[in-house]
Amino acid sequence: MQNNRRNFLAGFGAIAGAVSAASVSKVAMAALPEPVIQTGPATAGPLLPGTGRPYNPVVTLNGWTLPWRMNQGVKEFHLVAEPVVREMSPGFKAHLWGYNGQSPGPTIEVVEGDRVRIFVTNKLPEHTSVHWHGQRLPNGMDGVSGLTQKAIPVGKTFVYEFVARRPGTFMYHPHADEMTQMAMGMMGFWVTHPKAKHPLIEEVDRDFVFLLSSYDIDPGAYTPKIMTMTDFNLWAFNSRIFPGIDSMNVKLGDKVRIRFGNLTMTNHPIHLHGHEFMVTGTDGGPTPRSTRWMEVTTDVAVGQMRQVEFLADEEGDWAFHCHKSHHTMNAMGHDVPTMIGVDHRDVAKKIAKLVPDYMVMGERGMADMGEMEMPLPDNTAPMMGGVGPFGGLEMGGMFTTVKVRREQKRGDYKDPGWFKHPQGTVAYEFTGQLPEPARASAAPQKTPSAASTPAAKEVEVRVRKPASGHSGH
Amino acid sequence: MQNNRRNFLAGFGAIAGAVSAASVSKVAMAALPEPVIQTGPATAGPLLPGTGRPYNPVVTLNGWTLPWRMNQGVKEFHLVAEPVVREMSPGFKAHLWGYNGQSPGPTIEVVEGDRVRIFVTNKLPEHTSVHWHGQRLPNGMDGVSGLTQKAIPVGKTFVYEFVARRPGTFMYHPHADEMTQMAMGMMGFWVTHPKAKHPLIEEVDRDFVFLLSSYDIDPGAYTPKIMTMTDFNLWAFNSRIFPGIDSMNVKLGDKVRIRFGNLTMTNHPIHLHGHEFMVTGTDGGPTPRSTRWMEVTTDVAVGQMRQVEFLADEEGDWAFHCHKSHHTMNAMGHDVPTMIGVDHRDVAKKIAKLVPDYMVMGERGMADMGEMEMPLPDNTAPMMGGVGPFGGLEMGGMFTTVKVRREQKRGDYKDPGWFKHPQGTVAYEFTGQLPEPARASAAPQKTPSAASTPAAKEVEVRVRKPASGHSGH
Amino acid sequence: MQNNRRNFLAGFGAIAGAVSAASVSKVAMAALPEPVIQTGPATAGPLLPGTGRPYNPVVTLNGWTLPWRMNQGVKEFHLVAEPVVREMSPGFKAHLWGYNGQSPGPTIEVVEGDRVRIFVTNKLPEHTSVHWHGQRLPNGMDGVSGLTQKAIPVGKTFVYEFVARRPGTFMYHPHADEMTQMAMGMMGFWVTHPKAKHPLIEEVDRDFVFLLSSYDIDPGAYTPKIMTMTDFNLWAFNSRIFPGIDSMNVKLGDKVRIRFGNLTMTNHPIHLHGHEFMVTGTDGGPTPRSTRWMEVTTDVAVGQMRQVEFLADEEGDWAFHCHKSHHTMNAMGHDVPTMIGVDHRDVAKKIAKLVPDYMVMGERGMADMGEMEMPLPDNTAPMMGGVGPFGGLEMGGMFTTVKVRREQKRGDYKDPGWFKHPQGTVAYEFTGQLPEPARASAAPQKTPSAASTPAAKEVEVRVRKPASGHSGH
Repeated sequence: MQNNRRNFLAGFGAIAGAVSAASVSKVAMAALPEPVIQTGPATAGPLLPGTGRPYNPVVTLNGWTLPWRMNQGVKEFHLVAEPVVREMSPGFKAHLWGYNGQSPGPTIEVVEGDRVRIFVTNKLPEHTSVHWHGQRLPNGMDGVSGLTQKAIPVGKTFVYEFVARRPGTFMYHPHADEMTQMAMGMMGFWVTHPKAKHPLIEEVDRDFVFLLSSYDIDPGAYTPKIMTMTDFNLWAFNSRIFPGIDSMNVKLGDKVRIRFGNLTMTNHPIHLHGHEFMVTGTDGGPTPRSTRWMEVTTDVAVGQMRQVEFLADEEGDWAFHCHKSHHTMNAMGHDVPTMIGVDHRDVAKKIAKLVPDYMVMGERGMADMGEMEMPLPDNTAPMMGGVGPFGGLEMGGMFTTVKVRREQKRGDYKDPGWFKHPQGTVAYEFTGQLPEPARASAAPQKTPSAASTPAAKEVEVRVRKPASGHSGH
Repeated sequence: MQNNRRNFLAGFGAIAGAVSAASVSKVAMAALPEPVIQTGPATAGPLLPGTGRPYNPVVTLNGWTLPWRMNQGVKEFHLVAEPVVREMSPGFKAHLWGYNGQSPGPTIEVVEGDRVRIFVTNKLPEHTSVHWHGQRLPNGMDGVSGLTQKAIPVGKTFVYEFVARRPGTFMYHPHADEMTQMAMGMMGFWVTHPKAKHPLIEEVDRDFVFLLSSYDIDPGAYTPKIMTMTDFNLWAFNSRIFPGIDSMNVKLGDKVRIRFGNLTMTNHPIHLHGHEFMVTGTDGGPTPRSTRWMEVTTDVAVGQMRQVEFLADEEGDWAFHCHKSHHTMNAMGHDVPTMIGVDHRDVAKKIAKLVPDYMVMGERGMADMGEMEMPLPDNTAPMMGGVGPFGGLEMGGMFTTVKVRREQKRGDYKDPGWFKHPQGTVAYEFTGQLPEPARASAAPQKTPSAASTPAAKEVEVRVRKPASGHSGH
Repeated sequence: MQNNRRNFLAGFGAIAGAVSAASVSKVAMAALPEPVIQTGPATAGPLLPGTGRPYNPVVTLNGWTLPWRMNQGVKEFHLVAEPVVREMSPGFKAHLWGYNGQSPGPTIEVVEGDRVRIFVTNKLPEHTSVHWHGQRLPNGMDGVSGLTQKAIPVGKTFVYEFVARRPGTFMYHPHADEMTQMAMGMMGFWVTHPKAKHPLIEEVDRDFVFLLSSYDIDPGAYTPKIMTMTDFNLWAFNSRIFPGIDSMNVKLGDKVRIRFGNLTMTNHPIHLHGHEFMVTGTDGGPTPRSTRWMEVTTDVAVGQMRQVEFLADEEGDWAFHCHKSHHTMNAMGHDVPTMIGVDHRDVAKKIAKLVPDYMVMGERGMADMGEMEMPLPDNTAPMMGGVGPFGGLEMGGMFTTVKVRREQKRGDYKDPGWFKHPQGTVAYEFTGQLPEPARASAAPQKTPSAASTPAAKEVEVRVRKPASGHSGH
């Protein structure tokens, strides 16, 4: 494992060689739209609406939207499938496969009814294809190599063309050696905006999109292990992990839509704090109103897309994350024995002889770890990290925040910094008596149920006893 | 592993020391509501409705509801986060973390509009916080340590205060080192009853609640391994495993609601026999009627709550369980090689030399195991157990029964014992001819389709043949 | 492992011995309906509707429907639980447990209101029972051994009898040592057709059914490892794996229903290409119309049944599969280290000394593997396989196709071969200029949004820039 880096670089040279050997000729490229490459993980804010884009563009979390050119009424895009380096969080870079310089690839945004032509150039070391997940299209454009088309050989460019018939939330990914290629990060978002006002598609103020992916990269290594089926150690939004995921910054009162798709190997229950949301659409289309209910956690299965909507009517920094506790952690060993309640000083000494940089952890839980700096192997994201206004967050992976601010301007996606809590609204240490605000607030209230405010007794203890009739176990 | 017990006790001493060193001063505790501690796993039946509780209280399976006191119109609760010993099933005790003496902590029951103040005292060996999952509240009361508040240090008490604005089904759990703390059992249920009749909230006769949790405790050990991500060996309702889970005892014709939340690491498809139910609400609120459909199995994702409702209109002892077959088993080794069809007498001899108490299993499946007594390490739940009226049940983990009885009185939650089946309604051995009842019942019927009762032939064999046109594989 | 086969056969002899020792006497069998045994995995097409079957029978994928006899108004079936050999794909046979010669067992099809009597003979080496999942029935007919009946001993026949009260989609499986018995393949489908036209049950042209199961069979072995909880290596539709799963062949314009149930240990997101479908029913019954929405992927949890419906209005060969990428692969080692980017020539030499037949894989991804022939251990399904009209499909496991053809006759379920794509509708290599059809099709269109077809510029590049206000990460 310790020479993964060297091996990777050696191998990478081999890959580069393979590609250049079979590389795309000048002539073949001549009529192609020039590929646009993104190398950083910054979130690209929405474009100002201009002539010809009668829609509110989406914001791709730590990502961007692919430019296109019009060619005789056809929107032409150029995707380049290629090895990329993704900075998954500050200080941790992964060697993935993606499109146009990044993983995930850029978001494709079109309008219902658009005729779309996508040139796909294969700069990977193996053949590939692109499946346009959820789209209505001619069978031969469906992108299943072997079944509906020949795989795109190394160095070649293939052309896909179809009309974006259904408005909605889609994705694209390979359907050739797909276990490997998705484990390496190949995927991208696709949004087809409705051509006209759609009875089931709300107009929203903010519209965020991202894909869920998971990786198994050993600490200190750069390249995912592609055979892993369940034991992933990196759980990502758009191939980024907390604290590397941008917050979603909105104005108090905004209607917010968040769309996401899952290309991992397990369900992800996506949870928002402080608000309830509705699922308003899937990759099958917008959901009828009669089917909608409120949730605080929606479970998105693999190969599904969900769009959720809510009114951002509570100010603050609200956690937004997968609710599986290991999915808000970064790389760690899942086989480490529990140390809770164990005096391990001797053990630690023995291990330290074998493993330099070893440190004892978990003797009294692991809360210390969010607050301390540990020596880590090079190129390793801490298991949990992020520092908030009140100390260490002790999170990683699929975690970010929705920041709701009174002063956030329409169209402004800048991070407003941490929330300034109004006086008396933060959980506080009790030191023998309640502070003024709490005592004050305990006075007359608008909505107590009559029954729960007995006038007679100021302090009354009600101890509930088990019903006498019950047998216990 | 064989000295886990000794280590735990040694460590536990250290923990106790740490807590007492930083322990809560008399002065600081003075104004606190006296904490109420539960040490046994008996199911507390509902309280008789008294003045001021205009709702039908829930029954917490193998658990209880936390008492409160009224303080100038505010309902005050006191939660104590602390190490606990949970008897997970008769003869098997786990060393967990919980609240007020048990894991899960007590259920909090309030009424929509109540102002609630919760004192949380931290007697754990590490800092903690409490997140009020699903609640509308001020951002600073949301309980995400680092992000919305400082973590509660060891030995300190923090105060949370908010109005219970939404009626519904919620839970509470730490949002500080949460992977560890939830793996150790820290969680509790929360129900906010509607203040007035709610158009989407039915009045029911019985209302049961519990949380799903999973643990990885080696056979013979007491403490969960907290780094486990998928390979748990104990799957629990309210930190209890079958045969340690109380049955849900109802009257024939009762409207029954069962509410549950999932804080494990995977989905649990909860299945009821003999009835269909509807999901009527989530932690996001009651579901509109137009969204409801009938199920016999509902999948509850991690970080989700589900409330299901059904009419108990079929008498009997009806199984109620997670449908994943390994989740109705207790601790076992998942890596044991299959013995089916293998003559393993030699192997067994060799293993027995290495592992005293080793016994051969699975040569002809494992059905024998439910019926035999095996030597097990101390403090180990059998892999499958429970004895019913017809022999061994061969189940464990997330399994219990709904007992529907004609004679169960309103408000009576006592276990009525096993069902007495009416004559001729139990599957029976065929010994050459059908018994009288069966032959009788085969006579005139109300609902046969005309087509399926050909008058002409008494016994007619219809062998369906594949359509000739079909190619097979 | 290398003597699994020998061991299995030795063991099998022992099993056979056990059964015959306790075998069913001639007398006891006398009044039983003669059991009907199926030994091949061909898909049995629907029967021509005859007198007395006023319904459109379902087609069991790679399976069949069990014949019955009428006995004084009761439909009598005979299930035989027994060890079976299932050809999971061409050249790969698994030693499973099933019913009437196959795993899964035969589909039971009845009509709402039918009185049904099922004789279950146990030819397994251990006791068993049958649970009629989802049915309304007397508690003693529910099939939970120990709880509602005695287990069926080896060699005995038990009788179950009840009225099929609810129309719908059900299954049957053991509820005795069920972890083992379901891991060995014991399960079957059950359909109760509505007696009269049902307001929520559509009439469809084609109605396919299958069950999802998973197995852990080591390469070269025959028998599943029954203790496996998550790390299965074979993911099956009706105990068949691609390329061994029959395609679902329909006529353009057909209304198609596909019903499936899940008896594995994890959720399966079932995905259809090129069409959207609706979930129209569960094992709880048909879903009200107000609850239905469109999907391209539906997640079926363990112990759930789903029926989906769609209009087959797009011609072609459409992939239909579980969207978890490892579930469309066959047996492989999940712990193999990643070779991507690694020059492994030396490693390969070393391994080859240890493991004869070892071959290097994955150096440049694994796409090569779909196209090459590898030396495999005997009785092993290739990790991915299947050859389509355009080359290797690189798939396995839970994968098949829906073939939609203009010329497929009503009631004809024959495989029509590969789709013949209309000219210019297949993704193609770009060699410097667009072919005629593409250029032509880029001319006037019906549905472009006005905005997306600027008349002024023929080719226009729009490069979207991040909003200046955005901070990045």
